[in-house]
Amino acid sequence: MLRSHTCGALNIQHIGEKVSLSGWVQKSRDLGGMTFIDLRDRYGITQLVFNMETNTELCEQARKLGREFVIQAKGEVAERSNKNMKIPTGEIEIIVEELNVLNQSAVPPFTIEDETDGGEELRMKYRYLDLRRNPLRKNMELRHRMSIETRKYLDSQNFFEIETPYLIKSTPEGARDFVVPSRMNENEFYALPQSPQTFKQLLMVAGYDRYYQIVKCFRDEDLRADRQPEFTQIDCEMSFVDQEDILDTFEGMAKYLFKTVKGVEVEDFPRMPYSEAIKLYGSDKPDIRFGMQFVELNDVAQNKGFKVFDDAELVVGINAEDCATYTRKNLDKLTDFVKKPQIGAKGLVYVKCNEDGTFKSSVDKFFNQEALKAWAEKMGAKAGDLLLVLSGEGDKVRKQLCELRLEMGNQLGLRNPNVFKPLWVVDFPLLEWDEETERYHAMHHPFTSPKKEDIELMETDPGKVRANAYDLVVNGVEIGGGSIRIFDKELQAKMFKLLGFTQEEAQAQFGFLMNAFEYGAPPHGGIALGFDRLVALFGGSDSIRDFIAFPKNNAGRDQMIDSPSPIAEEQLDELKLKLVKE
Amino acid sequence: MLRSHTCGALNIQHIGEKVSLSGWVQKSRDLGGMTFIDLRDRYGITQLVFNMETNTELCEQARKLGREFVIQAKGEVAERSNKNMKIPTGEIEIIVEELNVLNQSAVPPFTIEDETDGGEELRMKYRYLDLRRNPLRKNMELRHRMSIETRKYLDSQNFFEIETPYLIKSTPEGARDFVVPSRMNENEFYALPQSPQTFKQLLMVAGYDRYYQIVKCFRDEDLRADRQPEFTQIDCEMSFVDQEDILDTFEGMAKYLFKTVKGVEVEDFPRMPYSEAIKLYGSDKPDIRFGMQFVELNDVAQNKGFKVFDDAELVVGINAEDCATYTRKNLDKLTDFVKKPQIGAKGLVYVKCNEDGTFKSSVDKFFNQEALKAWAEKMGAKAGDLLLVLSGEGDKVRKQLCELRLEMGNQLGLRNPNVFKPLWVVDFPLLEWDEETERYHAMHHPFTSPKKEDIELMETDPGKVRANAYDLVVNGVEIGGGSIRIFDKELQAKMFKLLGFTQEEAQAQFGFLMNAFEYGAPPHGGIALGFDRLVALFGGSDSIRDFIAFPKNNAGRDQMIDSPSPIAEEQLDELKLKLVKE
Repeated sequence: MLRSHTCGALNIQHIGEKVSLSGWVQKSRDLGGMTFIDLRDRYGITQLVFNMETNTELCEQARKLGREFVIQAKGEVAERSNKNMKIPTGEIEIIVEELNVLNQSAVPPFTIEDETDGGEELRMKYRYLDLRRNPLRKNMELRHRMSIETRKYLDSQNFFEIETPYLIKSTPEGARDFVVPSRMNENEFYALPQSPQTFKQLLMVAGYDRYYQIVKCFRDEDLRADRQPEFTQIDCEMSFVDQEDILDTFEGMAKYLFKTVKGVEVEDFPRMPYSEAIKLYGSDKPDIRFGMQFVELNDVAQNKGFKVFDDAELVVGINAEDCATYTRKNLDKLTDFVKKPQIGAKGLVYVKCNEDGTFKSSVDKFFNQEALKAWAEKMGAKAGDLLLVLSGEGDKVRKQLCELRLEMGNQLGLRNPNVFKPLWVVDFPLLEWDEETERYHAMHHPFTSPKKEDIELMETDPGKVRANAYDLVVNGVEIGGGSIRIFDKELQAKMFKLLGFTQEEAQAQFGFLMNAFEYGAPPHGGIALGFDRLVALFGGSDSIRDFIAFPKNNAGRDQMIDSPSPIAEEQLDELKLKLVKE
Repeated sequence: MLRSHTCGALNIQHIGEKVSLSGWVQKSRDLGGMTFIDLRDRYGITQLVFNMETNTELCEQARKLGREFVIQAKGEVAERSNKNMKIPTGEIEIIVEELNVLNQSAVPPFTIEDETDGGEELRMKYRYLDLRRNPLRKNMELRHRMSIETRKYLDSQNFFEIETPYLIKSTPEGARDFVVPSRMNENEFYALPQSPQTFKQLLMVAGYDRYYQIVKCFRDEDLRADRQPEFTQIDCEMSFVDQEDILDTFEGMAKYLFKTVKGVEVEDFPRMPYSEAIKLYGSDKPDIRFGMQFVELNDVAQNKGFKVFDDAELVVGINAEDCATYTRKNLDKLTDFVKKPQIGAKGLVYVKCNEDGTFKSSVDKFFNQEALKAWAEKMGAKAGDLLLVLSGEGDKVRKQLCELRLEMGNQLGLRNPNVFKPLWVVDFPLLEWDEETERYHAMHHPFTSPKKEDIELMETDPGKVRANAYDLVVNGVEIGGGSIRIFDKELQAKMFKLLGFTQEEAQAQFGFLMNAFEYGAPPHGGIALGFDRLVALFGGSDSIRDFIAFPKNNAGRDQMIDSPSPIAEEQLDELKLKLVKE
């Protein structure tokens, strides 16, 4: 080893010891006759000292070291006169006796500091330098820690980690597959898995009882911000369970992670039906760190002569407590916010509940004090509160109000990233109607089972059928979801029919799974959690990119290695492929 | 849960308890008025009892159950009169009071028993049924256990598991890449990684100090038996280390695995130079569970008038102890063995060291007793031993004798799969000459560093340069290998030149790595272990296929899901690709 200790290991107890350290030059300061160097590695920073008087040659050498040079220093641990109690090594320094330059470094294109001067583009290109910065190093360590603890928990619950294949088969259903041409099987292709869904179900048929895998999945989608073409899932499946067993098991896992990784004890997760989530929060992934639940106002706000409300399917508001002090300017900003094209509201109605018991609203013309008082009562508002009301077509206005609620949560500091409020959203609809193709799609996927009591509705009113499907939502972010699967081939056939598959299509795409179900499939269900997002959540960030060592940009490119790239003619020939050039 | 206990949980202490079990019908026996069913799940087998007299209806139901039906049984735990002490549940049975058929099963195409009647092809097609068999279940459990323990060890040694990307860049060097057309980047391709080599080196440049990953890798090779297009590696890299540090760390890991998983204490691993391995065993992966080392006989066997030997570059033999009793027929078989086209020897010379001190050889015509005695002495043979001697061109004859040695090891029962003899083969040559392209190839890979003391030879005699490269070999199987890397860009440039890369080619292929080395690359090195093979070794098998849940066949096909397969025209259009049909 080129070191006796790491740069995070030495403290007051090592004083007088001869040590050798290796690492990077973080910073260098010449102070009169002394040169101080902060030596950095993954474990910390240790101060090196060179004295011009006692060792001129060595000190001169040290003065020539540039930022990010890799060096080895040997010397004696000494107590610092000027202690830095913020870091574990801050009480000591190394009086250097020997210095070896292991490698030089060009001047990095941006500073290797917690707050860097490098732009996104530059940092992506030099990702290996960006990864040297503390915040990213901490993220990678967090990710490692979480994967270890996840495995520990699942292992303790008798789950086997079983690797499923990456070279599988393309299925037209769902998002686009990445495909991989096969050289040995001419004109045929593998596909990269969007998830190990069918394989984990086959493992249940195979009797493995409890399966998990922390696994890469692939989706060739047009990338929105914060989506990656390859992403990581904690993928799980269990046999002989019902929905509650799965929720219990993975609530247990989440609590275990919060406890061991964040040191946070989280309360039992509430379970909220999908319909309630939509009604109270306008979203299937409500942020319940704060209240501000939706209150429907149709009965008190309609038929008072305000045409906008009277024509609306839904009039719905939220109560922003203690916000009656919002100024005209604040309110205009909120109005601009809801009118943004991404949100698309026509306008915003407000009611201030003044301290003196009167009300001031943007629709005073149509609503007298008594009418506004009825709103306030319905919304449980007290003096000093601010009511914000939207109206329009039901689904749309709920989405708009959801955005407004989150914005108010931000403005009022109610969305503290160090507070964690998980919940289960349950009873999702089995199907959703797709206007474009004029047919039903599986809301979760085609193997999701309907609730027993709703099976009849599959014939009469498919849109009303609720599924044994659930999402884990934390702080307004969907962390994962799953379902109890159909394990009966007749029910599965019925489901495929509802989704508009012919028997032949179903057989061609899912034949191997349906065949497997002929041989004693157990009742089973599972869940998949987005690992990138879970780590980002634990790291207190909305963005997953800085929790992935080598992410791709929004065009799906790795800017560091400059990929994808053209391949050689011979490679194409071997694969029996020709490019279509435009 | 559809059970209170698993089928492996109940024993004498549960007698009298009401329980419910779920699982598969392994076997059913009707004995007079009783029906016995062996109920199976991942955890074990529990006997269910139905009594025709006391519960006729239930017993009749039970008699209708077919093999592999999935059932739930509720009843009371009772002591068995006819105990089976071979299984943990063998002292009890369940007097069934309620029986629910959870799913039926068609008759499986082969028996779900330790020894099945299904052929390879059938078992691959119905892999989910094959996986139900005990031997495969145990293999999957072993694999899970080994991955957990590997991670535990590496975590305890401060390694971070860091995920590297799967969609990377194609490099013409080495084996063929699988490529992935990019839809968003027209006419460009990703490649699937053959290993995370460059990324792990970049992580060292990034200061991560100790990295590991249990990761899938991909190689589009013509598949020999027991190769898979996708395979799993334990991939590791460390900074500020020399070769000994890496050997120590991973010897520690291997010992830890042998201990925790197999309960075996393994001695310190010997370190054998490559040249010695070739000289003594004719192989860079010697099986040292037994001796039978090569002895070169040129000085005692040449110039005695036997032209075959006189013309040979090398005459070399092994001593098969106590085998002088081999019959004519045995010896003919051995001769046939070495003359097989895969081995290619012209013939086999033997010498029997008779108990009476005389010698009997196949070349008595050319060698008198005294001459043969000289051989025996040189080979340390005693009365009762059998000498087996081959001759020819050095490299070729060593390979042939290596095969013969292993065959003798098999015949003599010296290759016990429950005995583990690991060793490090070290000091591999840096380069190997490729006759076809008439240039040097990197024996390990282009980032492997030469031994300091051999650097001069890079100019004068490149073939002689030894590398800081090492393989971990266990029982004649190469489990993994690695090297100390070049971290100096000038040495790297020299290496590329030796390998016949122009500067432009090197820049195009490895530019991002070489650029990264400009910014303070630390000394580093690593290793990659073949996880499939390691698990197979622990499982006592030569074949990796039964240690992979869903393997592919020799044509790279997954016979269960019938992949690869044609894809839709629209998919090709979106990817701007055309098939070349022949």
